[in-house]
Amino acid sequence: MTITGELLIGLENRRGGNSQLWGVEATSGERLQPGFGGAELGDLEDACALAASSFDAYRETTPDDRARFLERIADNILAIGDELIERCMAESGLPRARVEGERGRTVGQLRLFASVLRDGGYLDIRIDKALPERTPAPRPDIRLRHIGLGPVAVFGASNFPLAFSVAGGDTASALAAGCPVIVKAHSAHPGTSELVGRAVQNAVRDCGLPEGVFSLLFDSGRQISQALVADHRIKAVGFTGSRGAGTAFMQIAASRPEPIPVYAEMSSINPVVVFPKALAARGGEIGRDLVAALTLGAGQFCTNPGLVIVLEDSGYAAFTASLADTLKQSQAATMLTPGICKSYRDGIEALEANPFVKMIAKGAPGNNFQGQAAAFETDAANFLAHKELHEEVFGAATLVVRCATVGELRAVVSALEGQLTISMHADEGDYEEARRFIPLFERKAGRLILNGFGTGVEVCHAMVHGGPFPATSDSRATSVGSLAIARFLRPVSYQSFSSKLLAAELTEENSCDSQCGRDSEL
Amino acid sequence: MTITGELLIGLENRRGGNSQLWGVEATSGERLQPGFGGAELGDLEDACALAASSFDAYRETTPDDRARFLERIADNILAIGDELIERCMAESGLPRARVEGERGRTVGQLRLFASVLRDGGYLDIRIDKALPERTPAPRPDIRLRHIGLGPVAVFGASNFPLAFSVAGGDTASALAAGCPVIVKAHSAHPGTSELVGRAVQNAVRDCGLPEGVFSLLFDSGRQISQALVADHRIKAVGFTGSRGAGTAFMQIAASRPEPIPVYAEMSSINPVVVFPKALAARGGEIGRDLVAALTLGAGQFCTNPGLVIVLEDSGYAAFTASLADTLKQSQAATMLTPGICKSYRDGIEALEANPFVKMIAKGAPGNNFQGQAAAFETDAANFLAHKELHEEVFGAATLVVRCATVGELRAVVSALEGQLTISMHADEGDYEEARRFIPLFERKAGRLILNGFGTGVEVCHAMVHGGPFPATSDSRATSVGSLAIARFLRPVSYQSFSSKLLAAELTEENSCDSQCGRDSEL
Repeated sequence: MTITGELLIGLENRRGGNSQLWGVEATSGERLQPGFGGAELGDLEDACALAASSFDAYRETTPDDRARFLERIADNILAIGDELIERCMAESGLPRARVEGERGRTVGQLRLFASVLRDGGYLDIRIDKALPERTPAPRPDIRLRHIGLGPVAVFGASNFPLAFSVAGGDTASALAAGCPVIVKAHSAHPGTSELVGRAVQNAVRDCGLPEGVFSLLFDSGRQISQALVADHRIKAVGFTGSRGAGTAFMQIAASRPEPIPVYAEMSSINPVVVFPKALAARGGEIGRDLVAALTLGAGQFCTNPGLVIVLEDSGYAAFTASLADTLKQSQAATMLTPGICKSYRDGIEALEANPFVKMIAKGAPGNNFQGQAAAFETDAANFLAHKELHEEVFGAATLVVRCATVGELRAVVSALEGQLTISMHADEGDYEEARRFIPLFERKAGRLILNGFGTGVEVCHAMVHGGPFPATSDSRATSVGSLAIARFLRPVSYQSFSSKLLAAELTEENSCDSQCGRDSEL
Repeated sequence: MTITGELLIGLENRRGGNSQLWGVEATSGERLQPGFGGAELGDLEDACALAASSFDAYRETTPDDRARFLERIADNILAIGDELIERCMAESGLPRARVEGERGRTVGQLRLFASVLRDGGYLDIRIDKALPERTPAPRPDIRLRHIGLGPVAVFGASNFPLAFSVAGGDTASALAAGCPVIVKAHSAHPGTSELVGRAVQNAVRDCGLPEGVFSLLFDSGRQISQALVADHRIKAVGFTGSRGAGTAFMQIAASRPEPIPVYAEMSSINPVVVFPKALAARGGEIGRDLVAALTLGAGQFCTNPGLVIVLEDSGYAAFTASLADTLKQSQAATMLTPGICKSYRDGIEALEANPFVKMIAKGAPGNNFQGQAAAFETDAANFLAHKELHEEVFGAATLVVRCATVGELRAVVSALEGQLTISMHADEGDYEEARRFIPLFERKAGRLILNGFGTGVEVCHAMVHGGPFPATSDSRATSVGSLAIARFLRPVSYQSFSSKLLAAELTEENSCDSQCGRDSEL
């Protein structure tokens, strides 16, 4: 497949007339060819008009039609072969094994949503049959299903060029829900985006779907992104990225004549809480495992453990010694973009210069495009007094907060903002205390982990990749796992409908049994 | 029970020190005693602090505990007896049968949510068991449940002093979800509010629950309402009322340091679309039934049919003649408050003065506190050209829009804002055309009704009382029926948890079978 640098507007490919942008080789900072023409407002208009006009036809395809469409996207992505892997490695600096693994995850997500569609439970079909004899008034027949919200804007994420980008979890779940998708590609990986975008576009053609189901836009600035969120035909937004951009989208969406939901995953330092018995029994092991989680993917996961809160005990020295030893042996790793690397280095410098923080250790130094892992230490009082220590440093940096008492531990956790994950390390002897903390952890995070770390987000039914603000814009949602489809659905009731007018899934013959439908006589 | 005019702050009753307000006899405009002391910010602070401190303990009561609490509230409301009915009749002007019916509905809703709690399906328990042998990486055990969002602010509605007020659907569903509730009483029925509030307060005491689970505030102005929505301890808002107040709350909620969801039900004219075969066959009948729906409860239902869009055919004359005849015989009815009556009269006057609108008929005139039903007529071109004709006139007023062609009908429906309901009157010969309109209707409304009207909102599993903005602030939600509980829940995952730390509902022994839990091997 040749990368052309074109916009994909439905089935049409056209060169954007706005400022060009280029992919950049992450390991060298050098421009990759070709240049990508930035979209103009007219291109956005065409994509939105196509999406809006295809919505009704697309959402009334059968769930099996859409399942086959998602599977075709997966097949088409695999069919690109090594070209996709190599371009993605070049643009992201991620190693081959990670990129191949991420491709597997992306394909797996598409197939997961195909299975969700075939299962049908996502429709939450509810049937309340008529009660003509009821007094004082009869009850009419009422049936409920969920339908797609409308065209969805998806923003590619820098740190998952495949799994959270053009055909990532947001796109897969929105398409499954019956919503056309307009993707604004992340400028960190335009070539990867075009390749995947063409795989989706070809699947639209292969499956004979209305062309407006998918469009892909490039833009070097903010104009297209902001106009996309503001466009009246867009009914929801999926975003993974910075807190600044996410909250800006939330503001735009809330200020529209018709406000719409924004699902923004933004900022999380993923606290790790170490309880005393676990610390005493295996402080060294926890320190070592922490470094493994911290440095995975150059620390560029949303679930990277950026904060470790330790209730001090005899194992603390072993913990920090092991943490320091392991960290010093860690290699520097190429970061996603020179800009992200610069931000990381600035963040580390700020921590080094902070008088309330002490360096524990640093990993091996690297070149200008590589992040050097780092661990710092402070105490509860200083952490509570200095809000800048609560902020995410995107990359392999972590801060250990020493708490002398349970009261300090509670104060530190209570002071945290919303998180994607909270991990706790606890042995049986800690359980009584841990149990008292769980309600607080639940209020602070979308996923709690025992004796592990938040990195490694399973794509499954029980996953919540979400959490209270500012981890995400909407704690009621997850962006990973089968429940992610619920973000793009709304319920509709049909009262006293003739079976000749009901959607197939709502008719007696097709309605599933009591396992997934609710058939009640209140 | 004596009405004291006090605020209920947890289990404490205290007189508010802010400006007093009084209930008003709807039929005469006369003040009812006693006066209610308005809440000060210190009272709000106390209520919020109590709610926040009770949240963890309350949400970890068992579902059965909460079910018994809801049933106790229902019993306590019934135990007030005729005092509640009479006070509510006085404050609302609604007739006895309606108030008694609404009490039954209120009690029924509380019991519905008790059954939802015992069923357990609302938790959406999902269990992905560990796959220790999986390659390349094992899968950990991951389990999901839903927990309450946190303390919820509920605003009583003027038009349902029982079913959408202190212990109405918002309160019942939030309490079921495990969320403490702070109610700001509607100033149209403070006495009714206090009586019901004491029933809830007594149930809190009877069931030995933490006192912060419920508080009730009065305020004659906007200060307390706005501060309540802005308070950092409040995590969601339930509201039924005007578009102005609802959108103001949406703005406050979106501008908080931590934005929160607002479930506001605001404005709907509930279009009724009459297709030609139905019009020809039974135009007279439709006109007669329309008046019955229109004048129900003095037209003060959220689902009142304020717009009738007719695709003209031979039955049009019979339709308008029957509409006019029936309407002329309708009695004027006392409206909820003198202010609502004044607004209604202003709305009717504006329609009478509108040169693009023709009066069809008016009901019998009434006194100063009564609304006189009215029906008007315009054509598609004028309706499309004059946006003021799309606005809700709260009360028994309706506007008939004549469409000469299917194209005009589509243009008129397409121009509508979001609605709670769309009714269509269609005979078999209309089905082919109706089928083409259904996708458009689905995009415009939360509930579609065939050959009926939106009034009469069943409390059941399949009900959607919601719809696209501005019908509500959030089309993903319903405020009536068992699905309403989902508004106040968020998912949380537990990874690799010891059964000793898991909530009871997530353990192997207690997890329900595949009917409500998802146990998968992806």
